[in-house]
Amino acid sequence: MSFHATVLTLFPEMFPGPLGLSLAGRALRDGLWSLQARNIREHGLGRHRQVDDTPFGGGAGMVLRPDVLAAALAAAEPGARPVLCLTPRGAPLTQAMVREWSAGPGLVLLCGRYEGMDQRVIEARGMIEVSVCDAVLSGGELGALVVLDACVRLLPGVMGGAESAVEESFSAGLLEYPQYTRPAEWEGRTVPPVLLSGDHAAVARWRREQAETATRTRRPELWNVFLTNSKTGLA
Amino acid sequence: MSFHATVLTLFPEMFPGPLGLSLAGRALRDGLWSLQARNIREHGLGRHRQVDDTPFGGGAGMVLRPDVLAAALAAAEPGARPVLCLTPRGAPLTQAMVREWSAGPGLVLLCGRYEGMDQRVIEARGMIEVSVCDAVLSGGELGALVVLDACVRLLPGVMGGAESAVEESFSAGLLEYPQYTRPAEWEGRTVPPVLLSGDHAAVARWRREQAETATRTRRPELWNVFLTNSKTGLA
Repeated sequence: MSFHATVLTLFPEMFPGPLGLSLAGRALRDGLWSLQARNIREHGLGRHRQVDDTPFGGGAGMVLRPDVLAAALAAAEPGARPVLCLTPRGAPLTQAMVREWSAGPGLVLLCGRYEGMDQRVIEARGMIEVSVCDAVLSGGELGALVVLDACVRLLPGVMGGAESAVEESFSAGLLEYPQYTRPAEWEGRTVPPVLLSGDHAAVARWRREQAETATRTRRPELWNVFLTNSKTGLA
Repeated sequence: MSFHATVLTLFPEMFPGPLGLSLAGRALRDGLWSLQARNIREHGLGRHRQVDDTPFGGGAGMVLRPDVLAAALAAAEPGARPVLCLTPRGAPLTQAMVREWSAGPGLVLLCGRYEGMDQRVIEARGMIEVSVCDAVLSGGELGALVVLDACVRLLPGVMGGAESAVEESFSAGLLEYPQYTRPAEWEGRTVPPVLLSGDHAAVARWRREQAETATRTRRPELWNVFLTNSKTGLA
């Protein structure tokens, strides 16, 4: 039983897109996950397959109709899969969400366009509102690609070394330490001497300190969460 | 002089990808922006065009070499364009960054893969480290697509109504209010009566309250920033 993703979108031709290449693409061809992109317009109304209408209360743009979205969702047969709705109003995507979803049967991802979707269908169907960044995108499609890429790389058999998934930004609640490779000197810049010392314990200590410093200075809000989790034994 | 994007990547075939369709795709065909994806491997070393090497200090994965990245960057001729490096160690993307970049001459976007890039080249070239979400992706390519989509939709002539760009999540530092459209009753669920009242001032008040409530309850950290800006007259 592999991870099955269904994307509901007005632009099914955007999929698999970048996910058809590299790590995710190989995993797709190997059957480690499957992806179906369905056009919401198949469930549009009337001769013109209308999917949207003007917002009640006025304002620019168009809003996706609840009846159309509900029909598209029913046809996707979510089963036990969580239904995500990509929207800037959503909860910011975290690695914890990704870990949970990648361990499950898959996802249904609903991509908004225009000014958004009718809020009633989001509530009535218990959708999880998710946002991938604090910038406004032209639709939910890129968000869906981001969520799927993050999930797919955690599926069994997708990544080379299991280690790669562990020693990484956010996995321990910390940003990653900086990396250095050859040449040892480049444009007069050398690498931190400890990395050439062969002292594994010292390297591990230095990397941990670098990860903590980066998190504290670059992402104080993540650092506070990390400190809280450390105290309660979660980290 | 239009917005010019150069993406440095090991997977140039991922571009324009989703940005070749919909709003961004039309703007690309209309010459409102331009996009060039260049393969970092063109600057790889030796017969095998090697771009990466093992990390100093040990550990899984491979790190992109500073000399190779510097050569790829030089060939991209950034000129006055900011150089972004997509990495989970970066600053979270914000709508303020997007507004600034979309008003400029364009961007150079460097996409990491493997375990990351040598930190020296990031510092030596003054790259802006940017992260699109707090989840680990298989590479920087999706992040580059997200940044470009957010920038392109703000370019003059890309969006229909100028209003759409203003009345939106994050523009005022608040999440967007919920939206409703026809039918007025769906599965026994009605829309909030104020939206049918025709009282424009009451609708505006209700929407503002909803935006504030959503921000306060869903994104307390954004709400705190909003409160601080309100006090200093920035909102």
